[in-house]
Amino acid sequence: MRKIIIGVMGPGSSASYQDKQNAFELGKLIADEGWVLLSGGRNSGVMDAVSKGAKSADGLTIGIMFDMNESKISEFVDIPIMTDMGSARNNINVLTSSVVVACGSIAPGTLSEIALAIKGGKQVVLLGQDSEAQKFLTTIGKDCVSVVANPEDAIAVVRKLLKS
Amino acid sequence: MRKIIIGVMGPGSSASYQDKQNAFELGKLIADEGWVLLSGGRNSGVMDAVSKGAKSADGLTIGIMFDMNESKISEFVDIPIMTDMGSARNNINVLTSSVVVACGSIAPGTLSEIALAIKGGKQVVLLGQDSEAQKFLTTIGKDCVSVVANPEDAIAVVRKLLKS
Amino acid sequence: MRKIIIGVMGPGSSASYQDKQNAFELGKLIADEGWVLLSGGRNSGVMDAVSKGAKSADGLTIGIMFDMNESKISEFVDIPIMTDMGSARNNINVLTSSVVVACGSIAPGTLSEIALAIKGGKQVVLLGQDSEAQKFLTTIGKDCVSVVANPEDAIAVVRKLLKS
Amino acid sequence: MRKIIIGVMGPGSSASYQDKQNAFELGKLIADEGWVLLSGGRNSGVMDAVSKGAKSADGLTIGIMFDMNESKISEFVDIPIMTDMGSARNNINVLTSSVVVACGSIAPGTLSEIALAIKGGKQVVLLGQDSEAQKFLTTIGKDCVSVVANPEDAIAVVRKLLKS
Repeated sequence: MRKIIIGVMGPGSSASYQDKQNAFELGKLIADEGWVLLSGGRNSGVMDAVSKGAKSADGLTIGIMFDMNESKISEFVDIPIMTDMGSARNNINVLTSSVVVACGSIAPGTLSEIALAIKGGKQVVLLGQDSEAQKFLTTIGKDCVSVVANPEDAIAVVRKLLKS
Repeated sequence: MRKIIIGVMGPGSSASYQDKQNAFELGKLIADEGWVLLSGGRNSGVMDAVSKGAKSADGLTIGIMFDMNESKISEFVDIPIMTDMGSARNNINVLTSSVVVACGSIAPGTLSEIALAIKGGKQVVLLGQDSEAQKFLTTIGKDCVSVVANPEDAIAVVRKLLKS
Repeated sequence: MRKIIIGVMGPGSSASYQDKQNAFELGKLIADEGWVLLSGGRNSGVMDAVSKGAKSADGLTIGIMFDMNESKISEFVDIPIMTDMGSARNNINVLTSSVVVACGSIAPGTLSEIALAIKGGKQVVLLGQDSEAQKFLTTIGKDCVSVVANPEDAIAVVRKLLKS
Repeated sequence: MRKIIIGVMGPGSSASYQDKQNAFELGKLIADEGWVLLSGGRNSGVMDAVSKGAKSADGLTIGIMFDMNESKISEFVDIPIMTDMGSARNNINVLTSSVVVACGSIAPGTLSEIALAIKGGKQVVLLGQDSEAQKFLTTIGKDCVSVVANPEDAIAVVRKLLKS
C-alpha cells in the first residue's frame, strides 16, 4: 500500500513569482497523478505554493519541518513531520522522495538538497534555474539529473523515471 | 488541513501475542477516529500490527523508518519516512505525534521513545506494561503519563487529551 | 590514535548538590585515567560539573550540543559539537561513548540516553539513582547495566568493561 | 577553554593525488596554528589525508562519522563522533566548524556541505575546485565564500576570518 512520494524543493522567502507559479502547478499535477507531495513544509515560497497546488487537486501533502515552530507550518500541509533537526532534515526530504524536483532559483538550502539527493542515489529534475546552475549541477550529478522547461515536462520525466 | 497524528510505539520482534492484538485494535480504533497513525514502520511486532489494524479500517499510516532497508518496511505503511538516522529517529516519532501511546512490554527502544516524549512535552498513554514499569514511568513523567487497561480506554484518553 | 571516550549523562538544572559533586569527581577521575570526557555540554547541572571536574585534572572535554545557543555551552567544554538537532543528539552521545555513566536522579533526558545506550549495545553504569530506578533499569538492560555506589567504583567498573 | 575547530571537507575515494597533497598540507598547517581539525573521518581521500597531516604536526583530530562501521574510521582520527545518521551528519560537520575549507574537486557530499555551511551562516574557503565550480559557488554564497590557490593561502584567509 506504499504510496509514491514526490519531493519538491525550492526557495522560501526568496522565491520569485514565477517560481511560485511553477510550484503551484507542479503540486497540482503531482496530486492529479495520485502521488503524495513532500516538501520542506513552510508557509512561504515554493514550499507553500506547491502544497497549495496539491491541495487544490485533493492531494495529500507532507512537510518535513525544520523546527518545532508551529506558526511556520504551511496551512496546506496535511502531515507535518516534526524533525527539530534544522537543515539536517534536508537529507530526510530527499531520501523519502522517489524523485526530487528542484523548482526555482537555487538558494543554499535547495542546493544542499540537490547534492544530498545525488549523493543518496536519487534522480533530480531541475526546473526554473538559470543555465549556469543547470550546467554545473548536470556536471556534478551526471545521469542523476534531468533539466525540464515547465511543470508538465517535469511530470512527464518523473513518470518515466518511476517506470525505469 | 493539518491532520491529527497519533503515535503508537512498541516492541518489534520481542512483542507478545497480546501486545500485537492490542496494537491491531489500537490501529483500527485510531483509523475509526479519522486520525493518522504513526509508528516506527517496521514489518514486525507492534509496528506491523498497529499499521495492519489501521489499514483494516481504511486509515492512513506513516512509518518513521530507522534505516534505508526497504525490505523492513511494513506492507501496511502508506508513507515511509526514510530518516536513515537509526534510533535518533525516535525523537521524530514522538515530536510528530499529538499523543504517544506505548503499547506492550517495555523494550529499550520504546523506553527511549517514552522518555523523549516526556522530555518533549508530549502526553504518553501506557498500555500493556507490567505494573513496575508503569509505576516507574508515572513517577518520571508525572502529569504527562496516563495508564490504561485496554485499547478502547487508550482511545478515550487520547480523545480527552486532544480536547484539552 | 583513537582515544577512549567516556560519556557521563545526567540532569541539568534539576541536578542535586550530591549529583554535581559526584559528577565533578567522575570528571576528574576520567581525566586522571587519560580518557576523554563526553557530555551534553550545557552549563548546568551534571553536564557542567563533570566537565569542570575533567578540566581540573587537565582532561579533554567534548560537549554534544542540543542547539546552536552558544550561551548555553559550558565554559569547561573544549570541543562543542553543534548538532542543532535537539534531543535526537542523545543518540550521538551514547553511540560515541565507549561506556556510558548515568550520574544522578533520573530525568527524562537521561532516561532516554540510558535506553538508547542499551538499545545501541553500550554498557551503562548507574550512579546516584534511587533503588527503584536502578531496579527497573537493570531489568530492562540486563547484562548491559551495572550499579555502583560512588565515582571511584564507577571508574573501576569502566576500567573493567574497557578490558573485556 | 573552547578550542577553535576548522572543518576540512572533500572527496573520499574520488580524491585526486593533488587533492590529497593539499589536504595533508592543510591538516599540518591547521595543527601548527593550534586549531582542532574536523573532517568526515573516513579512511580515504581528503578525510584521511587531512587527518594524517594534522597528526604529523601533533594536532587534535575529530571525525564526524557517517555510520557505525568502525573499519572506516581513519587511523588518524583521535575522536570519532559516531552519528549513525548518514549524510545528515554533514550539517553537524559545518555547524561545528568555525570556518569550513572545501578541498578538492566537488563531489556531491562536499557540495552538500558547502551549501549547508552557507545556509548555516558559515564562511567557506574553496581550494582546488575547477573555475566553473568556484564561480557557481561564489555566486550562491556571495560574501560567505573565498577562493584560494594553495593551503598556505587557505590558512591566511581562515586566520583573517577568525579575527573578524
